[in-house]
Amino acid sequence: MQAKINKIGVLTSGGDAPGMNAAIRAVVRSCAFHGVECAGIFRGYQGLIEGDIEELNARSVKNVISRGGTFLKSARSKEFMTKEGRQKAYDHIKKSGLDALVVIGGDGTFTGGLIFNSEFNFPIIGIPATIDNDIKGTDYTIGYDTALNTVVEAIDKIRDTASSHNRLFLVEVMGRDAGDIALNSGIGAGAEEILIPEENTGVDRLIDSLKKSKKSGKTSSIIVVAEGDKSGKNIFELAEFIEENLDDYEIRVSVLGHIQRGGSPSCYDRVLASKLGVGAVDALLNGESNIMVGIHHQQVVSVPLKTAIQGGAKFDKNLRRVADITSI
Amino acid sequence: MQAKINKIGVLTSGGDAPGMNAAIRAVVRSCAFHGVECAGIFRGYQGLIEGDIEELNARSVKNVISRGGTFLKSARSKEFMTKEGRQKAYDHIKKSGLDALVVIGGDGTFTGGLIFNSEFNFPIIGIPATIDNDIKGTDYTIGYDTALNTVVEAIDKIRDTASSHNRLFLVEVMGRDAGDIALNSGIGAGAEEILIPEENTGVDRLIDSLKKSKKSGKTSSIIVVAEGDKSGKNIFELAEFIEENLDDYEIRVSVLGHIQRGGSPSCYDRVLASKLGVGAVDALLNGESNIMVGIHHQQVVSVPLKTAIQGGAKFDKNLRRVADITSI
Amino acid sequence: MQAKINKIGVLTSGGDAPGMNAAIRAVVRSCAFHGVECAGIFRGYQGLIEGDIEELNARSVKNVISRGGTFLKSARSKEFMTKEGRQKAYDHIKKSGLDALVVIGGDGTFTGGLIFNSEFNFPIIGIPATIDNDIKGTDYTIGYDTALNTVVEAIDKIRDTASSHNRLFLVEVMGRDAGDIALNSGIGAGAEEILIPEENTGVDRLIDSLKKSKKSGKTSSIIVVAEGDKSGKNIFELAEFIEENLDDYEIRVSVLGHIQRGGSPSCYDRVLASKLGVGAVDALLNGESNIMVGIHHQQVVSVPLKTAIQGGAKFDKNLRRVADITSI
Amino acid sequence: MQAKINKIGVLTSGGDAPGMNAAIRAVVRSCAFHGVECAGIFRGYQGLIEGDIEELNARSVKNVISRGGTFLKSARSKEFMTKEGRQKAYDHIKKSGLDALVVIGGDGTFTGGLIFNSEFNFPIIGIPATIDNDIKGTDYTIGYDTALNTVVEAIDKIRDTASSHNRLFLVEVMGRDAGDIALNSGIGAGAEEILIPEENTGVDRLIDSLKKSKKSGKTSSIIVVAEGDKSGKNIFELAEFIEENLDDYEIRVSVLGHIQRGGSPSCYDRVLASKLGVGAVDALLNGESNIMVGIHHQQVVSVPLKTAIQGGAKFDKNLRRVADITSI
Repeated sequence: MQAKINKIGVLTSGGDAPGMNAAIRAVVRSCAFHGVECAGIFRGYQGLIEGDIEELNARSVKNVISRGGTFLKSARSKEFMTKEGRQKAYDHIKKSGLDALVVIGGDGTFTGGLIFNSEFNFPIIGIPATIDNDIKGTDYTIGYDTALNTVVEAIDKIRDTASSHNRLFLVEVMGRDAGDIALNSGIGAGAEEILIPEENTGVDRLIDSLKKSKKSGKTSSIIVVAEGDKSGKNIFELAEFIEENLDDYEIRVSVLGHIQRGGSPSCYDRVLASKLGVGAVDALLNGESNIMVGIHHQQVVSVPLKTAIQGGAKFDKNLRRVADITSI
Repeated sequence: MQAKINKIGVLTSGGDAPGMNAAIRAVVRSCAFHGVECAGIFRGYQGLIEGDIEELNARSVKNVISRGGTFLKSARSKEFMTKEGRQKAYDHIKKSGLDALVVIGGDGTFTGGLIFNSEFNFPIIGIPATIDNDIKGTDYTIGYDTALNTVVEAIDKIRDTASSHNRLFLVEVMGRDAGDIALNSGIGAGAEEILIPEENTGVDRLIDSLKKSKKSGKTSSIIVVAEGDKSGKNIFELAEFIEENLDDYEIRVSVLGHIQRGGSPSCYDRVLASKLGVGAVDALLNGESNIMVGIHHQQVVSVPLKTAIQGGAKFDKNLRRVADITSI
Repeated sequence: MQAKINKIGVLTSGGDAPGMNAAIRAVVRSCAFHGVECAGIFRGYQGLIEGDIEELNARSVKNVISRGGTFLKSARSKEFMTKEGRQKAYDHIKKSGLDALVVIGGDGTFTGGLIFNSEFNFPIIGIPATIDNDIKGTDYTIGYDTALNTVVEAIDKIRDTASSHNRLFLVEVMGRDAGDIALNSGIGAGAEEILIPEENTGVDRLIDSLKKSKKSGKTSSIIVVAEGDKSGKNIFELAEFIEENLDDYEIRVSVLGHIQRGGSPSCYDRVLASKLGVGAVDALLNGESNIMVGIHHQQVVSVPLKTAIQGGAKFDKNLRRVADITSI
Repeated sequence: MQAKINKIGVLTSGGDAPGMNAAIRAVVRSCAFHGVECAGIFRGYQGLIEGDIEELNARSVKNVISRGGTFLKSARSKEFMTKEGRQKAYDHIKKSGLDALVVIGGDGTFTGGLIFNSEFNFPIIGIPATIDNDIKGTDYTIGYDTALNTVVEAIDKIRDTASSHNRLFLVEVMGRDAGDIALNSGIGAGAEEILIPEENTGVDRLIDSLKKSKKSGKTSSIIVVAEGDKSGKNIFELAEFIEENLDDYEIRVSVLGHIQRGGSPSCYDRVLASKLGVGAVDALLNGESNIMVGIHHQQVVSVPLKTAIQGGAKFDKNLRRVADITSI
C-alpha cells in the first residue's frame, strides 16, 4: 500500500502545448482543495535533477489559464536518461519532501516517468499534453484542439491570397508521425487534398486529383501536408514535382511551423486540462500510480502509462471519406 | 419502402449557429459525390412556403466553410405552424422535384420537420446546429464549440480590465435553459463563480463564496451567469443585490449577447458539420427518415427526431466539481 | 533648473487601456538604457498615497508587451483629490527617492498630475492611454486602435447573425463624449448608420434613413450608437422607438461593454506605447516637465498637460461623409 | 479638359492585400452615391485584356468589407507589358463604355497605369494597397496595418514556445526591400533583434548582441529578419552561423510566409480603404488623372503616380532607437 500523499510535485516536459498552464493550475488548486502541499518543478526532469523547485499555492497560478506555453518551462533532459541523473532527481525529491509527481507531456515524458517509477517505486501520474494527439488511451491530448484552430485560421488567411491569385498552396502542418492535425485541419480549412503519414497514396494520385479538381472548375487549391508524410518527398520537392507535372498552376509553399505550438488555449483545451489536472490529484489520493489520466467518451479515465506510450493510431477511415467527399 | 432519392433540399432554420454553412456545404458536396441533385431553400420553412429555392452545385458552396451565419439565411416561420402553411410548403417541394429534406437547426426545426413528415410522409433528416448544445442524442451540436471560444475570448478581455481595477464582473452568457455554455466557458475563463439554470443554489451561497474568495486573496472576480439562471433575479438585479451585501467590490455587468452566435467556426465545428452533412445524405440514401444525425463517442449516429427534441439535460456533476476546485 | 533625475516612478491611472503594459515596459527599459533607476507604483495615485511601490528592472517587464490591462493596476483615487492625500503621496515619493513621475492615463490622470506639480513642483510627464482617443495634442491615444479592432470583430460576428435573420441591430460602443470609436468602427464594420455625440441629427432622420435603406434592397442593418449619443434616448428606448416607427424589422440591442477595454494590444498600440514610453524618459532627462508626450504626424511631440486636458474634439466631417457614402 | 465621367472601372492588381475588398466597395458605393456607373474588372490588367468585366452596383459589394483578399481577384499580367496587350485592354474599355479606371495595388500596378495613360490618354487613379508599405507619397498603404497585426500575433505564439524552452527563434517576415514590417512588428512583438534591408549591420554585431542579451538574464530570444535583409545570408544560413558562434542556444527558424497577405482587415485598413476609395472617385469627378490618392497626416492627398512609384524609403532612425532601447 502506498504511503499518505502530503506533497505533490508537478512538472511539464517535452514539447510544450497550449493548455499546459491550465493543467498545472488545476493540479495546484486541486492540491489546495484537498489540503495537500504542492511544488512546481521548473524545466521538466532537468529541473528535478538540478533542484529547481518552488512551492506553489492557489494564488501562484492566478491568470495563467489563458496563456500558451508553460510557466514551469519545459525541456528534454538527456541527463534524466542516465541512472545518475535519475538518482540526483530522486535526491531532490526526498529533499523537497515530495510524495508523488504529476508529469505533464507526451510519450517521452511518460517513458521517463515509468523508468523512474520502476527504479524508485515513486508514485507517478501522467497528464497527456501534446499538440500531436498521438497518445493511446485518451481521445484527446491537451493542446491538440488549439493547434487545430491555429492551423485552420492560418490556412483561412492563405486561402484569401490563394483565391485572389488562382494559386496552389502546399501547407505543411505538424503532427510527427500522426496525421490527426493534417486530416482534421484539412477538412476544417476545406483543403482540396490532404497527405498524411498513415497513408501512402503516392504522388501520382495527387496529380490526378489536382487535374480533376481543375476540370471541375476550382481555380485555387490548398494541399495540407503532414510533416511526417510518407510520399518520399519533402514539401519543397513535392512543390517542384507538381510544378513539373501540372500546367497552369502557380505553386507556393508554406511551412506553418512553431506558431502551431503557441497561443491562448481554446475553451476545450482549458476545460480538458482542468478536468485532467483535478483527475490526476484524485488518482494520487486514491492510491493510483503509473497511470495516465485521459479522456474517453467525455469521462476521465485511468490508463496504464505503458499503454499510453504505445502510440496513438487514431486514423479514422470515415474521416478520410468525409475529406474526400467535402473537397469534391 | 422509400422511393429513390434524386434530389435533396437543404435548409437552415431557427437561431443561427457558426458551422451551419459548413453543414450546408457538406450536404451539397455529398449530393454531388453521389450524383444526386441538391437545392437550397432560403429562410428556412418560410422560404419553402414561398418557394424561395435555388439549385446548388459543388461550386456554389465555395469558401463558405469559414463563414459564420448561414448563407441560406434562417427564420422562424409562424406560417409553417399552420396546416395551410405546410401545404404550401409541400406544393413547392413537389414543384421543385425534391425527394427529401435536410433540416439544419435545433428543437424547433426538428419539431416542424416531424409534423411535416407525419402529414406528408416526406423524408426528413435533421442536423443539430445550435450554440446551446441542448439536443438529446448528440454529444455536441454544431456551433457550440465556437460559442464557447467566443465567450472565453470575451471574458479574457474582461479579465484584463477586472484585474487592472480589482473589480467584480457579472457576465451573462447564452444557453436558454441549458447551462452548458456557462459551465464550460466559466471553467475555461477561470470564473470564480458560475450560475446555471440546472442548479438553484441561491444568492446567499454566492455572497458567502465571494466573501471567502476575497479572504483567500483574490482581488478581482468574474461570475458567469447563464441567461436561464434560476436565482430569481436578472443580472442587473443580481449586481445590485451583491453591491448591497458585499463591501469593497466595484461591480460591473456585461451581457455578451449576440456576438456568441456569430464568428468563423472553430475547427471542431467545421469538422463536426462536415461529418454530419455527409452523414445526413448517407442516411437518406440508406432509406432513413425522421432521424437526426448526431455525434456520439466520435461516431456519427442516427437518433429518432422525437428523441432529439426531448431536450439536452447534459448537466455533468463532475464538471461542477471541477469548476469548484479550480476556482478555489 | 531641474535637479538631476536618478530615479523615475511610473504609474497607470484611470480607466485601463490595452497597451498600458507596453508603455510601462518602455519606460522601465528606457530607464535601464539610461542608467536611471525605476520604480513601479501600484493602483495609480492611490498606491502612491499608500506607498505601494516596487523597484522595476529591465527583466521585470518581460513578456508584458502582449498583455491587455496593466500589471501595475489602475484606480481612481478620491483621496488624491484632497490636499492631505497628495501630501501623503509626496511623502512616499521622498521616501522612495523618486525624482520624477511618468503618469499613464487620460485627462483625469493628467489633471491630478498638474495639481500635484503645482503644489510640490515635482516633475511630471504624461503618456496618453485611453480607448476614447479624447486627449488634445496627440493624434492617437494608446488603446484606441485596439478598441477599434475589438469593436469591429464583435460587429462582424453580429453581422453574421443579423444577415442570417434579416435583423436590425443597435450596437452600443464606448467613447464617453467622443464619437471617434463609433465613427471609425462604424465605417470599419460597414454599419448602415452611426450615431455620435458630436452630432444631434435626431431620430426622425434615422427612421428616414432606415426606410431608404430597406428600399434600396438591404435586408439587415447595423446601427452603431456611441454611449454618449445625444439623441435623448438610451439604446433600449431607441430600439423601442424604431420598432414603433418601422415595420418589418426585428430589432436587437447589443451593448458591447467592457470587452472593449481589454485584449492583447494591436501592433500599432504596442509601437505607439513603446515610442511614447521612450519619449517620456527622454523628455524627463531633457529637463521637461508638465507635458504629455503625444504623437503628431508620426513624430513624438511634447504638449503642455494643460492643453492635453482640454478635450479631444477630433470630429472629422470628411469621415462622416465617408460613412454616409460607403453605407449607401 | 477631361470628358465627363459616366462609368468607372475598378481593378486590383499585383500582390493582394487585406483591405482591397474594402477599397473596391468604397469605389463602387461612391459611384452609386454620385450616380455614376461602375464596372469591376477581374484579374487585374489581364482581365481587362480578356474583357472579364462585370457591372457592379451598391449591393454587389455587400459584406465584402470584412474579407481578406480581393473578390475581383488579382494577377500579374505579362501581356499588359506589351503594346498589343494594352491595345486589347483599351478595346475592351471602349466596348464596356468605361471613362476612367481606378487601379488598386502597388508600384507595378501604378507603372502599368502610367504607361497605359501615356498611350491612350485614359484617366487613371491609383489606390495604394500592399502589405509592404513601400509606396512614396502615402504614410500608409492598405493592408500594411493588418499584416503587422498578423505578424505580431504569430510571434506572440512563437514566444510562448520560445519561453517554455529557452530557445532562440529566427522569424522571417515579408516586406520585399522595405524593413517597415520587420521593424514595427519587431518592436510590437518585443523582438530582441531586428534585421532590416535598410541597414547592413553585419552578423558579428548580432552575435555580440545575443551574447549581451544572454548575460543580461534573457533566456529566450526572438530575432525578426526582413526577407530583404542584407546580411548576405538567408535565414537558414543565418541560423547555422549563430549555432556555430553561440553556445547554449537551441535555434529554430520560422518563415511566416503567406499568412501575412491574408486575413480579415484591421479597422484601420478598412477605414483607410474606405477613405481612399471615396477619394479616388472624388478625384476622377474633379478631373484629376495620373495620380494616386494617398493618406498624409490623416488627410487624403493626391500624389502624381510617377512620384508614388519611386519607392517608400520610410526608414525611421528614431524607430530603430526605440527598438534598441525597448529590447534591452
